[in-house]
Amino acid sequence: MRYTPKTYEGYHMLHDFRRIDFSFWRALDEHEKQARLESLRELLTGWAELETRGEGHSRIYAVLGHKADLLFLHYRKSFDALLDAQFALSRIPAGDLFPPAYGYYSVVELGSHTGDPSSDPKLMAELYPTPPKDGYVVFYPMSKKRSKDENWYWMPQEERARMMRSHGEIGRKYAGTILQVVGGSQGLDDWEWSVTLFADDPIAFKKIVYEMRFDEASARYGLFGPFFVGRALDETQLERLLTG
Amino acid sequence: MRYTPKTYEGYHMLHDFRRIDFSFWRALDEHEKQARLESLRELLTGWAELETRGEGHSRIYAVLGHKADLLFLHYRKSFDALLDAQFALSRIPAGDLFPPAYGYYSVVELGSHTGDPSSDPKLMAELYPTPPKDGYVVFYPMSKKRSKDENWYWMPQEERARMMRSHGEIGRKYAGTILQVVGGSQGLDDWEWSVTLFADDPIAFKKIVYEMRFDEASARYGLFGPFFVGRALDETQLERLLTG
Amino acid sequence: MRYTPKTYEGYHMLHDFRRIDFSFWRALDEHEKQARLESLRELLTGWAELETRGEGHSRIYAVLGHKADLLFLHYRKSFDALLDAQFALSRIPAGDLFPPAYGYYSVVELGSHTGDPSSDPKLMAELYPTPPKDGYVVFYPMSKKRSKDENWYWMPQEERARMMRSHGEIGRKYAGTILQVVGGSQGLDDWEWSVTLFADDPIAFKKIVYEMRFDEASARYGLFGPFFVGRALDETQLERLLTG
Amino acid sequence: MRYTPKTYEGYHMLHDFRRIDFSFWRALDEHEKQARLESLRELLTGWAELETRGEGHSRIYAVLGHKADLLFLHYRKSFDALLDAQFALSRIPAGDLFPPAYGYYSVVELGSHTGDPSSDPKLMAELYPTPPKDGYVVFYPMSKKRSKDENWYWMPQEERARMMRSHGEIGRKYAGTILQVVGGSQGLDDWEWSVTLFADDPIAFKKIVYEMRFDEASARYGLFGPFFVGRALDETQLERLLTG
Amino acid sequence: MRYTPKTYEGYHMLHDFRRIDFSFWRALDEHEKQARLESLRELLTGWAELETRGEGHSRIYAVLGHKADLLFLHYRKSFDALLDAQFALSRIPAGDLFPPAYGYYSVVELGSHTGDPSSDPKLMAELYPTPPKDGYVVFYPMSKKRSKDENWYWMPQEERARMMRSHGEIGRKYAGTILQVVGGSQGLDDWEWSVTLFADDPIAFKKIVYEMRFDEASARYGLFGPFFVGRALDETQLERLLTG
Repeated sequence: MRYTPKTYEGYHMLHDFRRIDFSFWRALDEHEKQARLESLRELLTGWAELETRGEGHSRIYAVLGHKADLLFLHYRKSFDALLDAQFALSRIPAGDLFPPAYGYYSVVELGSHTGDPSSDPKLMAELYPTPPKDGYVVFYPMSKKRSKDENWYWMPQEERARMMRSHGEIGRKYAGTILQVVGGSQGLDDWEWSVTLFADDPIAFKKIVYEMRFDEASARYGLFGPFFVGRALDETQLERLLTG
Repeated sequence: MRYTPKTYEGYHMLHDFRRIDFSFWRALDEHEKQARLESLRELLTGWAELETRGEGHSRIYAVLGHKADLLFLHYRKSFDALLDAQFALSRIPAGDLFPPAYGYYSVVELGSHTGDPSSDPKLMAELYPTPPKDGYVVFYPMSKKRSKDENWYWMPQEERARMMRSHGEIGRKYAGTILQVVGGSQGLDDWEWSVTLFADDPIAFKKIVYEMRFDEASARYGLFGPFFVGRALDETQLERLLTG
Repeated sequence: MRYTPKTYEGYHMLHDFRRIDFSFWRALDEHEKQARLESLRELLTGWAELETRGEGHSRIYAVLGHKADLLFLHYRKSFDALLDAQFALSRIPAGDLFPPAYGYYSVVELGSHTGDPSSDPKLMAELYPTPPKDGYVVFYPMSKKRSKDENWYWMPQEERARMMRSHGEIGRKYAGTILQVVGGSQGLDDWEWSVTLFADDPIAFKKIVYEMRFDEASARYGLFGPFFVGRALDETQLERLLTG
Repeated sequence: MRYTPKTYEGYHMLHDFRRIDFSFWRALDEHEKQARLESLRELLTGWAELETRGEGHSRIYAVLGHKADLLFLHYRKSFDALLDAQFALSRIPAGDLFPPAYGYYSVVELGSHTGDPSSDPKLMAELYPTPPKDGYVVFYPMSKKRSKDENWYWMPQEERARMMRSHGEIGRKYAGTILQVVGGSQGLDDWEWSVTLFADDPIAFKKIVYEMRFDEASARYGLFGPFFVGRALDETQLERLLTG
Repeated sequence: MRYTPKTYEGYHMLHDFRRIDFSFWRALDEHEKQARLESLRELLTGWAELETRGEGHSRIYAVLGHKADLLFLHYRKSFDALLDAQFALSRIPAGDLFPPAYGYYSVVELGSHTGDPSSDPKLMAELYPTPPKDGYVVFYPMSKKRSKDENWYWMPQEERARMMRSHGEIGRKYAGTILQVVGGSQGLDDWEWSVTLFADDPIAFKKIVYEMRFDEASARYGLFGPFFVGRALDETQLERLLTG
């Protein structure tokens, strides 16, 4: 009989990467700058209130490199709430400063081997994680190889399970150092999964990804998209990126 | 003797993805904004009348992520009618707000195993489907692999048929939950087929695509393009994306 | 002894794809619009006169999808005449409306098996074809695979000849329905050949490409670039794309 | 013992591809146009004087297709002199007209089998070639395949030498018709070599590349980048591209 | 037991590639030009002071070709200090002149075979290298192949070590001629490593990369990204790129 995967889904996640249009910003007069900052503060206040009401989380990161300047990371309980977050940022006056650079939609998922999470607070906390307010983040999407000789989806389920156990052991070595949130994005975006890691030191990202690269699931089957590394910003720090 | 595929064709389909140029919109004065909204309303009215006359369907979706902000989905009875829809949107004053982001041309198709659909109302309904007015959509183009060892087009026809039957069984499990419209685009666009799924919950897209990934036709032969997920908008909701 | 291919060459062909900058157009006042249209009419008149003198052909198509809005198709007796056509369109005032989107340079070719075409009017007509003034066009570039196990250029010549005969048989089934012009572009552009098909119905493009996909030359050796489908425009129809 | 390749290097070469911003040009008043043309003439005069002093060569070509409008080809005796040529064009007022489109840095090279070229005028002429002032050019970058079963760099040196001899024989057939300049770009740009061919007829480019495609070095090991074909322009012809 | 790689990390490195917007520069009046140059001088002074305090190094290079005009190379002791360097350049008035072109984040690394470097001044100098103030640079990112038959990460560790020893021997032949800085970027950017070479003559880059291409680690396992070559600029030379 054919294998039928079962998954449980939690938060809908949007990784909304933006550039900062510094030339646009510099060309504004002081009044125009303040109007834009004011609209940004109001948006952030709304997101903070939403968090207080238990409806999700939003975090902002300064990103290194040319692919993006900022990551607006949103966890919400529905697709619609993600749409709201994305279009709100684009629509407010501050939206002029933040043209889109990259984006990714995925949903936190747990495999069926965990059992029904709804009665298990620990699993529920994994489906609805709280991202830290400080520190560093790395985001990357990934897929599994499907070549003739190495096809993740055309292996016996036991093989996949064995590899994922080994993979998980490495992850557990970094528990306490790295918080990992895995999203499923099959049918939702261009790769099959999203990986988001949080840590107090970006060197931890280098060490875990390097170690995992020698693990069979990654070494033989992992296909990796772009990597984005950022540092968490509070509202004041975000404004200082613009104002210096 | 060589295999000669036979297909029946229905609606011509255009997936017309656009960005929203929010900076352009914000820089307009109130009068200019109204002129653009008015031209948009007129266009939508025309499309609604066209639907009333049985000439096809147009739907609009808000899309998550950086690849596009909107999907204008058009089903028509001819290529020319699709050209009309696309160029009308570009030409009206509201066209300034919606620069092109991605597009895809395909034609609804049924395999010859169905028999001549013209005398079968159920098959005719499959060739000329009505997209729902509410809910969610995912669109992705796809092709079949043609490597030395796994070549979809260089297999016995029975093998292909066997795999497509298995593939179809999964699809049928989601009947009632997901409406699926498959378009052929060989000779018409960059991939070989388009897939459009409609559902009341985007998680359904994740579940069906994930399950199918373990099915031989997808696991070994499926090559997938970009995925776009959106939520249906009526005219009021579309305007609110701009006006807040 | 090594195989030395021989070919005969006819028209130089430029597929000059352009976008329409509708925002630029809308921002012009009536006088500026007329100046641009006037320059366009003059250019088209020149191309028509050139055709009358037997120096080649130019056709214009409205293209569906985001990759381009227009195709300016030029057949000429020299590279220089193609340069003239391309730069003339860019240089006239109407050039503001038509920024480049894609382009392809190739030369009509016949294989040496045809014998010297210069004394054969039928072959000369194939080297110097006249594109129809009405109907639909599809353009796509292609190459042949050169992997270890399937290398078009590293097979015995008889194998290639056998496959091309089979390929040609399919083409002949569509004679009368589809006019096919094949250009060689090795050493001239990024793919090895260009294919341009003309028909009264774009569904014909879908049917021939789908059928050929099961033919060995395509199934095992064909690598395909982007596909562009368009509808022929006369001067009035071209202006109406802009003016509505 | 491991193979240690030896090469001799001659001219540093920059293929500096530019677009022409015709919209920018058209929006200038007559005085602004003349200022830009004057700065261009001065630059070209400087390049001509540099050639007279034996410091290198600069040539300009009109390029067909959307990838570029112009090729500024520079041969110089140092990297610094290439930097000067590139930044001079960007810095003068005419630089507004010529935004960058593509570029390639490589160095003329001869294999060590030629013996030390410094005492051989014929080899010195190959290391420091003079590009013709008229006619046509094609440029393309290329690399050699490194797959498991076909790895150019992991073959016995004798195999490579045998293939390159066969390759060279084809080249010699076109001596007198085509001038070929090969540049090495390992460690300098994205591909491993650059190829520049000069001829009085662009059909010659098609014939030599097509014939070579059946040669083992190309058929099994050649990987080809984009192809750019152009026609030589003198100063008057270059200005006429703009002024008509 | 599974292989667990160990690494030591030194400087955080940002390769911040920028274009020069010469059209923007030319359109400024003299006062606006001076304000931008002044802001640039102040930034460079800050970087020089930071170097004096032992907090890292910044170097600037003029880059040949269309991919970038300038490389701002930063070595720092933390990710945050790299963020500061990047956003400072974007935020100052001179930032208008330098839109982003490419970027790469990596960290100097040494393998565990070196032993703990903290007590070894020679190793510490490798972890915290000082880039030369003159001469030439080449930067390229790279990864190791992971195909079924050639998988760097799925080989016995002894095999990898043997290949890296051979690889290192070539590098040592160029000691004195070329300074090499290798950065790890697994989990930090899109490729697995960065390579930066410094030399007095760019021909040295060509020779070492060509020779290494025949070495097993590169020939069979090396995958290479884009190559950027540049020449070091002091403050005066940088201004002269703009002012002539």
